[in-house]
Amino acid sequence: MTLSDVSLTPTRDDKFSFGLWTVGYNGSDPFGGPTRPKLDVVDAVTNLAELGAYGLTFHDDDLFDFGSTDAARQSQIDRLKQALADTGLIVPMVTTNLFSAPVFKDGGFTSNDRAVRRFALRKVLRNIDLAAELGAKTFVMWGGREGAEYDAAKDIRSALERYREAVNLLGDYVTDKGYDIRFAIEPKPNEPRGDILLPTVGHAMAFIETLERPEMVGVNPEVGHEQMAGLNFAAGIAQALYQGKLFHIDLNGQRGIKYDQDLVFGHGDLQNAFALVDLLENGGPSGGQAYTGPRHFDYKPSRTEDVAGVWTSAAANMRTYLLLKQRAAAFRADPEVQAALAASKVPDLSNNTLASGESYDDLLADRSAYEDFDTDAYFGGKGFGFVHLQQLALEHLLGAR
Amino acid sequence: MTLSDVSLTPTRDDKFSFGLWTVGYNGSDPFGGPTRPKLDVVDAVTNLAELGAYGLTFHDDDLFDFGSTDAARQSQIDRLKQALADTGLIVPMVTTNLFSAPVFKDGGFTSNDRAVRRFALRKVLRNIDLAAELGAKTFVMWGGREGAEYDAAKDIRSALERYREAVNLLGDYVTDKGYDIRFAIEPKPNEPRGDILLPTVGHAMAFIETLERPEMVGVNPEVGHEQMAGLNFAAGIAQALYQGKLFHIDLNGQRGIKYDQDLVFGHGDLQNAFALVDLLENGGPSGGQAYTGPRHFDYKPSRTEDVAGVWTSAAANMRTYLLLKQRAAAFRADPEVQAALAASKVPDLSNNTLASGESYDDLLADRSAYEDFDTDAYFGGKGFGFVHLQQLALEHLLGAR
Amino acid sequence: MTLSDVSLTPTRDDKFSFGLWTVGYNGSDPFGGPTRPKLDVVDAVTNLAELGAYGLTFHDDDLFDFGSTDAARQSQIDRLKQALADTGLIVPMVTTNLFSAPVFKDGGFTSNDRAVRRFALRKVLRNIDLAAELGAKTFVMWGGREGAEYDAAKDIRSALERYREAVNLLGDYVTDKGYDIRFAIEPKPNEPRGDILLPTVGHAMAFIETLERPEMVGVNPEVGHEQMAGLNFAAGIAQALYQGKLFHIDLNGQRGIKYDQDLVFGHGDLQNAFALVDLLENGGPSGGQAYTGPRHFDYKPSRTEDVAGVWTSAAANMRTYLLLKQRAAAFRADPEVQAALAASKVPDLSNNTLASGESYDDLLADRSAYEDFDTDAYFGGKGFGFVHLQQLALEHLLGAR
Amino acid sequence: MTLSDVSLTPTRDDKFSFGLWTVGYNGSDPFGGPTRPKLDVVDAVTNLAELGAYGLTFHDDDLFDFGSTDAARQSQIDRLKQALADTGLIVPMVTTNLFSAPVFKDGGFTSNDRAVRRFALRKVLRNIDLAAELGAKTFVMWGGREGAEYDAAKDIRSALERYREAVNLLGDYVTDKGYDIRFAIEPKPNEPRGDILLPTVGHAMAFIETLERPEMVGVNPEVGHEQMAGLNFAAGIAQALYQGKLFHIDLNGQRGIKYDQDLVFGHGDLQNAFALVDLLENGGPSGGQAYTGPRHFDYKPSRTEDVAGVWTSAAANMRTYLLLKQRAAAFRADPEVQAALAASKVPDLSNNTLASGESYDDLLADRSAYEDFDTDAYFGGKGFGFVHLQQLALEHLLGAR
Repeated sequence: MTLSDVSLTPTRDDKFSFGLWTVGYNGSDPFGGPTRPKLDVVDAVTNLAELGAYGLTFHDDDLFDFGSTDAARQSQIDRLKQALADTGLIVPMVTTNLFSAPVFKDGGFTSNDRAVRRFALRKVLRNIDLAAELGAKTFVMWGGREGAEYDAAKDIRSALERYREAVNLLGDYVTDKGYDIRFAIEPKPNEPRGDILLPTVGHAMAFIETLERPEMVGVNPEVGHEQMAGLNFAAGIAQALYQGKLFHIDLNGQRGIKYDQDLVFGHGDLQNAFALVDLLENGGPSGGQAYTGPRHFDYKPSRTEDVAGVWTSAAANMRTYLLLKQRAAAFRADPEVQAALAASKVPDLSNNTLASGESYDDLLADRSAYEDFDTDAYFGGKGFGFVHLQQLALEHLLGAR
Repeated sequence: MTLSDVSLTPTRDDKFSFGLWTVGYNGSDPFGGPTRPKLDVVDAVTNLAELGAYGLTFHDDDLFDFGSTDAARQSQIDRLKQALADTGLIVPMVTTNLFSAPVFKDGGFTSNDRAVRRFALRKVLRNIDLAAELGAKTFVMWGGREGAEYDAAKDIRSALERYREAVNLLGDYVTDKGYDIRFAIEPKPNEPRGDILLPTVGHAMAFIETLERPEMVGVNPEVGHEQMAGLNFAAGIAQALYQGKLFHIDLNGQRGIKYDQDLVFGHGDLQNAFALVDLLENGGPSGGQAYTGPRHFDYKPSRTEDVAGVWTSAAANMRTYLLLKQRAAAFRADPEVQAALAASKVPDLSNNTLASGESYDDLLADRSAYEDFDTDAYFGGKGFGFVHLQQLALEHLLGAR
Repeated sequence: MTLSDVSLTPTRDDKFSFGLWTVGYNGSDPFGGPTRPKLDVVDAVTNLAELGAYGLTFHDDDLFDFGSTDAARQSQIDRLKQALADTGLIVPMVTTNLFSAPVFKDGGFTSNDRAVRRFALRKVLRNIDLAAELGAKTFVMWGGREGAEYDAAKDIRSALERYREAVNLLGDYVTDKGYDIRFAIEPKPNEPRGDILLPTVGHAMAFIETLERPEMVGVNPEVGHEQMAGLNFAAGIAQALYQGKLFHIDLNGQRGIKYDQDLVFGHGDLQNAFALVDLLENGGPSGGQAYTGPRHFDYKPSRTEDVAGVWTSAAANMRTYLLLKQRAAAFRADPEVQAALAASKVPDLSNNTLASGESYDDLLADRSAYEDFDTDAYFGGKGFGFVHLQQLALEHLLGAR
Repeated sequence: MTLSDVSLTPTRDDKFSFGLWTVGYNGSDPFGGPTRPKLDVVDAVTNLAELGAYGLTFHDDDLFDFGSTDAARQSQIDRLKQALADTGLIVPMVTTNLFSAPVFKDGGFTSNDRAVRRFALRKVLRNIDLAAELGAKTFVMWGGREGAEYDAAKDIRSALERYREAVNLLGDYVTDKGYDIRFAIEPKPNEPRGDILLPTVGHAMAFIETLERPEMVGVNPEVGHEQMAGLNFAAGIAQALYQGKLFHIDLNGQRGIKYDQDLVFGHGDLQNAFALVDLLENGGPSGGQAYTGPRHFDYKPSRTEDVAGVWTSAAANMRTYLLLKQRAAAFRADPEVQAALAASKVPDLSNNTLASGESYDDLLADRSAYEDFDTDAYFGGKGFGFVHLQQLALEHLLGAR
């Protein structure tokens, strides 16, 4: 790919999608109420379509209020469908709100209260039917209230067992119904609970292996969530790709370990955002896309912005992604970068450590590998040149090469 | 268990073990050199035995210098063996240093330099033989240098593939040799690398599932390492127990998200230490021990201490553990705590969400679960009483009940 | 003071106070709405008085809604006064809400919008009159919205200048009116803004020195706020005491660097809470109280709790404080602790480094201080015994001595 | 200033300086020994001069080993002087090592051991003479060991009093000798101590106000140190400038709250680095430089690098600074940015809140400020446009405008 292949105007081929709750965020936070009126779903679809997005996602409660009558619910679904038909936007992903209503104050699938757990399952099953009806291929599960503030308050192993019971049941349901839907667990370390179950991409992927149908379940990592634990997001995504579990992704910005900021993508850790886009776009086996699903923005327009500012901020997510894609393409195409990568032996790491057909006995017999190996040469010499490589990356990011 | 069952004097039945590098820490840190002389291994064994420990663990380079001649190496092994024989101490765990020498400056198993990877494998294979010879049952792998400061410098997926290649080979080796050894991966988020591969317990457990022999490989979580990512250590241990992967544990203290402090166990987050001991000692299926392996202290005597202070600090680890064990026994035995747990519905979480034999169709047909469920009752009512429960835990921790 | 001098039943002499917004917290957070109904101020006063508190504090908007008519406002003031008269509770502190209403979305005193700044000043002036009327001695200023998410969005020097202009004007006003009121700035590093002006106790105290009346302005540090920056709260309080600036204090609990948790006091970093109470209660010149003002709890009853749980949690704050006070008294009274402090040379630090009357010339002439000073003795010897001291503190905290 | 005014080739007018310990860092860290040989000071001076730096700084122990004989010490001083004369490099700043030798294991000025405090003063006095002899204008004090791991181990108020005693004495000395030297305190929150005295720029500036000669003492903030507390570095610098205390600055890179990384400037939080350079270069009263002192790099060449990599990394610091200066000039010159700043009312914040001559009585009488002020207009309207402004900043940073 060359620079000129990357346009800065979003198109549907870019697969940019937004949560209804993102552009619909009314500005409410722990220290203040709304600063903006409620956004109608039809306005959301229309505006996103005009800006170049291809998809809208939502929680059930985003579209129709918790506790809506069937008629009110259906009316909102119909309005959404019409707007999708009018614009060509699709619904690639749906998710269920198990965290806002008082009934979920100790979680949904893992509430200590069994009646709540049963209610939560019913709410999700109903929403899976809707997801299937709308053609969504991914069903995200963010267990934001599944957790605790106090260690004695939650038996974590039982909580994992209940979470497992729930996901297994949902897997049975989707399979039996023949829905073309996969599940994606979204990890987060804390907020709104003191500690949340499955706090990182790693914990979620480990848990998935305990399920009856692990192949149906992947992860939906969010930039800010991993960064709230001080973890390298691009590295976590690489492990998710390695394990075949990157089913969906939530792009946004976060400025370090603090409350969940949900800034515009790129307005947080810019260098890691560059590495991420480079990985997603250029990290495939032959250099192409390593991830082909939706580029889903899960951000919040800052509380300081008015309605016009909402749409400006939505556009900024896509433009920044495309800018970084442009920079990453140039980075990969630069012969000096390729030389620096080689000097740093980055490509060497894809070579097996043992030769083809070599056994551990062969290795043990290879005196050049140990007895005659010159470890002293690594003192004062055999530098890896990583700083030079990083500087090249930085200069490409800055558009300075 | 009752209060009087828990003595504060350590015995070998408590299975307390220490790394040779812990009591042997000479005080060197990023801003200063040693403040204490080198500790001889025989002194370490003798003193630890007197204090009530049952085990000593070590990296190869702790016992004999990197690059030792075979004779020098053997001499140190013989001295260790004699000390073990003299005291009855055992070596429950051995590990290999792939991080101190300049040759490992970009890691061992995942160095970009293939010759280094081969050397690292040889160093580990040799040390596994020693571990088997000494009767160690656990071989820990802390990949402290497996990582990067810069995203472009490390192809994470290749690094995971090389790590997998290495662990698979070691699994073959141990299996073929008939050694009674299991592996335990020790995660850490950062330091000494900017970002380390397999940064948390979750990432390590997820990776283990990709191995050829996942059953041979577990985790060795360290209190401070998970807390450096702001994660709840006791919760992470609970997930490791849930997944059958708690093969070993490193106990110490850390005061929040900062450099790796390696304080005495309990000198960091005291409430989480209490929850941890309660989990390990009382979290088994019928209320007994959930973990029966070594209670391994991986701490550093503060740089301000002299030689006498080293042994005082070693003893403090064990005494604090036993104090917390005593407090946890009293907590579990208190009828008021049991009532509070019940009021908080903590035991309810071990009950299946679906009734025995209930299908999702049955659940969908149960109007009491959804259509007739009174979600409004959770507003202003149906409180979980978690703060009261936490206060009871705190007061037991403080010895105030 | 001896153990028996410290009761665990709060009395008004303990000077425990609570914000109306604390017990009145309705459970709303970034991911969910209220779980509890609004608390009436009369109920708050009555319940707090029964539990043993001596004071209630409030923001204007806690007592009467933003934008209330004069009549509605006065009615609430009258109801509060009657409740105070009925119970004997006092109002030691009042503060103004410059952060919840949409008009303050970019802050109050430092909003980029001058009209907002003027409105904010008016709102505060009106509330100072009320504070004086109610006999409050401290007026707290928490500038939670004074900050920015984006560096270009806020000219920090101008913001400081506007903040200074505001505080100077308020100082003039209070002085001219003859009110017996001092101001206390409450720092916080972030949340709800990405970065907040005057993020720590240090930044606030430095700023105070630029004011026209620095003597009228101190700080109101909050446990969780400093800990959100990873800072040692007790150490920060010690510096505030050193500089004569501890005008008020907000006690609560926080579990590390994350969103603002506002847990019950002691339910966060327990060891630092112990050090804090020891400092406040035993850190005076002759061993008595170093701080004699209100012990103000600024916490939130967890969202999982019902109305009864609110009062249980309020009581837990006071009981934990008194337990820690009891432990600290025993710690200070223990001869073994006194010996350990001496061995660690802790009291030595209060001795001048230069002898009385010694000049730098005298010091330069003292060969024992440099030329003949045996620095080698500090290698392997002259340990400070800090770990032993810490273990004694821990065991006193645990009630184990 | 326009784009073309900013060259990417460093010259002495840029006032770039480096610590001898930076390019001289041998790669030693908590988990490994040196990977590079010791750097000779003459090589350091020669190479830095060639790369375009204008200054070298050092700790006494960088230039001559702790405990050197007078002759050895003088020889190194002479060699440095000759190298300076040969190259034209200057020594703008000198500092003293009070943290590496075992004698300083509990600190220097605030060690609990009075003999150590006296030794520390002597060591500093001697080094001040050298600083004056070499023409240094700034004497930095980084109290890296002034702190504690355990709250009971350090009486913070006494420590502040001893620190004050020391700085007052040094101020007397410099004044009496007529040296043209000012002091700059360098804050750091932790590492190598668990908590360090004067942990942030704010705490240091507050402390300075307690000194006898506050005008002689400022701060030397380091990018990574403030970011280790999660603080906004550019905002902290703005407060230091506001208070007239930015006497020196340490530029480097840090990737979040973790151990002290000392990366190349710009290799950490890139957006904040951009804001910082914009502030330093364009934040003066009339748009010029707000800071005219040395741009001092306090970084470490990564341990993975060889000797050639050291100099590559040194050059990268300067080039990145100049690139950011170029980007910042373009940002400020862009009419669209100026329009966005105006729309965000950023310049409005420099206007007084009260009109010229307006009293608080006038303000109280202004009904438009309160009674008739339309606060409702801020709901759904009167957006600040901060996201748009941030996106413009980002695009200038990326060189995309």
